[in-house]
Amino acid sequence: MNYRAIRFFLGHILRIEALFMLPALLLSLLKSEWSAVRGFAVAIILLAAISLLLHIKTSRDRRIFAREGFIIVALSWILLSFFGALPFYISREIPSLLDAWFETVSGFTTTGATILKDVEALSMGLLYWRSFTHWLGGMGVLVFLLAVLPLSGGGSTLHLLKAESPGPDTGKLTPKLKQSVGILYLIYVALTVLQTLLLLAGGMPLFDAVTTAFGTAGTGGFSVLNSSMASYSHYCQTVVAIFMMLFGVNFSIYYLVLLGQLKRVWKNEELRTYLCLILAATLIVTLNTLKSFPSFFDALHHGYFQVVSIMTTTGFATVDFNLWPELSRMLLLVLMVIGACAGSTGGGFKISRLLVLFKSFRYGMKKLIHPNAVKVITLDGKRIDRENLASVHWFSMAYFLSVCASLLIVSLDNHSMDTSISGVLACVNNIGPGLDVIGPVGNYSVFSPLSKLVLSFDMLLGRLEFFPVLLLFSPAVWRKHAK
Amino acid sequence: MNYRAIRFFLGHILRIEALFMLPALLLSLLKSEWSAVRGFAVAIILLAAISLLLHIKTSRDRRIFAREGFIIVALSWILLSFFGALPFYISREIPSLLDAWFETVSGFTTTGATILKDVEALSMGLLYWRSFTHWLGGMGVLVFLLAVLPLSGGGSTLHLLKAESPGPDTGKLTPKLKQSVGILYLIYVALTVLQTLLLLAGGMPLFDAVTTAFGTAGTGGFSVLNSSMASYSHYCQTVVAIFMMLFGVNFSIYYLVLLGQLKRVWKNEELRTYLCLILAATLIVTLNTLKSFPSFFDALHHGYFQVVSIMTTTGFATVDFNLWPELSRMLLLVLMVIGACAGSTGGGFKISRLLVLFKSFRYGMKKLIHPNAVKVITLDGKRIDRENLASVHWFSMAYFLSVCASLLIVSLDNHSMDTSISGVLACVNNIGPGLDVIGPVGNYSVFSPLSKLVLSFDMLLGRLEFFPVLLLFSPAVWRKHAK
Repeated sequence: MNYRAIRFFLGHILRIEALFMLPALLLSLLKSEWSAVRGFAVAIILLAAISLLLHIKTSRDRRIFAREGFIIVALSWILLSFFGALPFYISREIPSLLDAWFETVSGFTTTGATILKDVEALSMGLLYWRSFTHWLGGMGVLVFLLAVLPLSGGGSTLHLLKAESPGPDTGKLTPKLKQSVGILYLIYVALTVLQTLLLLAGGMPLFDAVTTAFGTAGTGGFSVLNSSMASYSHYCQTVVAIFMMLFGVNFSIYYLVLLGQLKRVWKNEELRTYLCLILAATLIVTLNTLKSFPSFFDALHHGYFQVVSIMTTTGFATVDFNLWPELSRMLLLVLMVIGACAGSTGGGFKISRLLVLFKSFRYGMKKLIHPNAVKVITLDGKRIDRENLASVHWFSMAYFLSVCASLLIVSLDNHSMDTSISGVLACVNNIGPGLDVIGPVGNYSVFSPLSKLVLSFDMLLGRLEFFPVLLLFSPAVWRKHAK
Repeated sequence: MNYRAIRFFLGHILRIEALFMLPALLLSLLKSEWSAVRGFAVAIILLAAISLLLHIKTSRDRRIFAREGFIIVALSWILLSFFGALPFYISREIPSLLDAWFETVSGFTTTGATILKDVEALSMGLLYWRSFTHWLGGMGVLVFLLAVLPLSGGGSTLHLLKAESPGPDTGKLTPKLKQSVGILYLIYVALTVLQTLLLLAGGMPLFDAVTTAFGTAGTGGFSVLNSSMASYSHYCQTVVAIFMMLFGVNFSIYYLVLLGQLKRVWKNEELRTYLCLILAATLIVTLNTLKSFPSFFDALHHGYFQVVSIMTTTGFATVDFNLWPELSRMLLLVLMVIGACAGSTGGGFKISRLLVLFKSFRYGMKKLIHPNAVKVITLDGKRIDRENLASVHWFSMAYFLSVCASLLIVSLDNHSMDTSISGVLACVNNIGPGLDVIGPVGNYSVFSPLSKLVLSFDMLLGRLEFFPVLLLFSPAVWRKHAK
C-alpha cells in the first residue's frame, strides 16, 4: 500500500476544502454572523494545519492502484464530511456533532436529507456552505482535484475517477482524461450559472438563486426556505424542474452535443429510457393527483416537478407529495430506486444499470426457448462483456444487502414502515425527503442517533457506489503483502 | 411446436385432478353437504369430458423441448386452478368466480392467502379440497405425473421437471429421473403421515390434523379455523413449527440421509445458512417481542413459530404478528423475500440463489482489489459456472420487475404502503398473510378485482419461478418456424 500517495491526496483534498470554505467565511463576515465566522475560521485553520501535517515527507512516487484509489476516495469523503460539519457544530447552530455530521454528509453526498426543523433559523453563511456542499459533491471533489493537480500519467488518476464517479461507465472519457475532466467541470459551471441567471430573471433573490442552483446542479435538494420550492413562482419552479432534468443526464451527452454529434445523442439508449420514464411517470402522477389540484395544468406542473425531483434524486418539493394517493407515492418510491443516468450528478441504481439487467433478462428468456442460440447483449451498439455484466450484478447485491441491513437497524426506532423504507431508500439513493414523518414537510430529526449514523453511512455508500466504503472495512485491503 | 404432446400432457393433468377431487366428493356425500357435492360432481364431469376431448388423436411422438415444457407447465397450472375453483363457485360457497379462482390459485401455489372472512363457514368437503390443493401444489402436479406416467426417455420429462421444480438446481436427481421423483414423493407422503400422527397424538381432531398436515407439507398455510394455529395446544403448534422447518429443507437432503451420506448433509451450505438464519431471526424476534408475552419461553415459542412460518413461506400464525414492534415486522418482511431452500416445497427467492449472489459479490470485492486474481465461485464444493450465475441474475430481474409492476397496480386500491408491499411480497413469495389489513387476522377480500387478478398472477409467477408464465406471453414462443 502506497501510504505516502494516500497522504498526498488527502492533504490536497483538505486544502481544497479550506479554500472552498473561504466564500462562506467572507459572507458570514459581511453579514456580521460572528458565531458562524468563528466556526468557519476554526475549521479552516484546522484543515490547513492537518493538510500541512499530511504533506510532510510525501515522496514523488504517486503511483496508486485500484486498492489505494478506493481507500483515498472513501477516506476523502469521510474527512470532508467531518471537517465540513465543524462550522455547524462550533457555531452551535447545530448543537449536536452527530446532527452536524449527518447534515454535512447529506450535503456532500447530494442527498438533501435534513435534521433541521427550521432551516431558516440558520445564518446565511452556513446556509451558503450547506448548499455549496451539494455543488461540490455533485461532480465529485476528487474529480475536481484531478482537473487542477499537476499529475503525470493517466493510470493513477483513472483509479480515483473510477472510484468516485457515479455509474458503471467512465470509459468514454479516458483517452485525454485530464482535459475531459476539465470540460466536464466547465459544462457543470456553465449550466449552474445559466440556471442562476434564469432564476434571477424570474425575480428570485440572488442568495436564493445561487443556493437553489447549487442544490439543483448537485441534484442535492437543500433549500434555504422551510417550504423548499413551494413559495417560489411557477416560472422559477419550472426552471428548477427543467434543470433538475438536465443535471440528471449523463454529462458525456453534453460533451457529444458540444462535438456536434447529435445523431449519437439521439440514439443514446439511456437518455431515451430516462426521458420516456419521466414522461410516463409524469402522466401517471398527473392523472392520479388530478383531484388534489384546481386544474389539469396545476397537476401536470407539480407532477412533473415531483417526478423529476425524485428521479434525479434531487428532492426539492413544491407540494407535500406524502399526501398524494397511494399509487403516486408508490411510483415515487420506485423512481427513488431507479435514479438518474450514469455519469450525471444524480444517484440511485442508475438507468444504464437497469438497462443492462433488463437486456440480460430478455436474453435469458430467449435462451430458455432456444438454448443453443448465441447472441450478444449490446448497449448503444457496444457489446456488454462479462466484466460489465458482473459488476452490475455485484452492485445490485451490495445494494440489496445494504438496504436490508439498514432497514432492520432503522426499524428499531419503531416508526411506520413507510418511514423506515422510504428513509433508507431516500438516503441510499441520495434523494432526501421520504414519506410519512420524513416527507417534504417533515425531517430526519425524529430518528435515533444509531439510525442517523446508519443513514449517513447509507448516503456515503450510495454516493460512492458501495465498493470504496465497503472495501474500507475489508481486511484484505489492509493486508500488507498484497500488492 | 408439438401441440399433440401438449394436449397429451394437459389431458392427463386434468384426469389426475378429477381423480384427486374424488375424496373431497366422498367426504361431502358423507356429510350430506349437497351444494358441495353438486360442485365437485360438475367439476369432475367437466374435467373428465375435457380430458377425453384433449386426448383425441394424440400421436405417439411425445418428444418435447424446453419451449413445450414451459408451455405445458404454465397452462397446466392455470387450468388446474380454473377447474379447481369450480366446486367453490358452483356450490355458491364462494359466490364470485374471481374470488374462487384467487382462493384456488392461492391453494395450488401453496400461498395460503385467503379472500374468506369466515373460513369456518365453508363445508367440510370444500375445506378438505382447499387444504389438499396445498399438498398437491407443494411437490408439483407434473412431478407427480412424471412419477406415474409410463413415459420413455428422460429428455422430455426433464424439461417438465425443470420448469416446475422450485429452485435453481434439479441436476442432482437427473440420472434415474423417474425413480428419483418417486422417492421424493415417498418422502413427502411419509413426512405428511408422520406429522398427522404426531398431531393426532396431541389431541388434534382427525380432520384438523390431516388438513393442517397438508398445509404444512405444501408450505401453504390454509387452516380450517379462523384463528389459524392460535387455538391449538403449544405441543401441536410446536409440531407444526418443526414440520414447517423440515418441509423448507431441500428434499435431496432427505435423499442423502436415506443413503446414509450424513457428512454431505452436514456440509451442505444452503442447509447451514437456512438453519443459521432461522436461529438468528428467532433470537431477534424473541428479544424484540419480550414485552408482548408473559414469559421468555412464550416469546421464544411464538417467535420461532412465526419466523419459520414466514421463512418457509407457509403463513400459519399463532399470534397477530402485525402488532409486533417494527423491527420484527421488518424482519419478517425481509424473510418473506429470502424464502426457503431450493428443492423444498417452500417459495421465495430461495437461499441457494442468495448464496450464489453473495458469493459472486464477495468475489467481485476481491476482484476490485486484485484485478488479475482468478478464482472460481463454488457452492458445496461444486463450481458455479456462468450459466448458473446468469440464470440467478435473470431470476432476480424477473423478480424485481414483477414486484415493481404489481406494487404500482395494487397501490391503485389506496391501501397503506404496508398492505400493498407486504401483499405483493406475500403473494409473489407464496406466503399468504401480510401486514396491516392483510395481517394474520385480516384477509385479501379488501382488494379490488384488478388487484386480486394481479396478486393471483403473482402467486403463479412465484410458484413457477417466473419464466413459464412470462414465456406464455412471449410472441417468440408461439412463432411457427422456431424449433
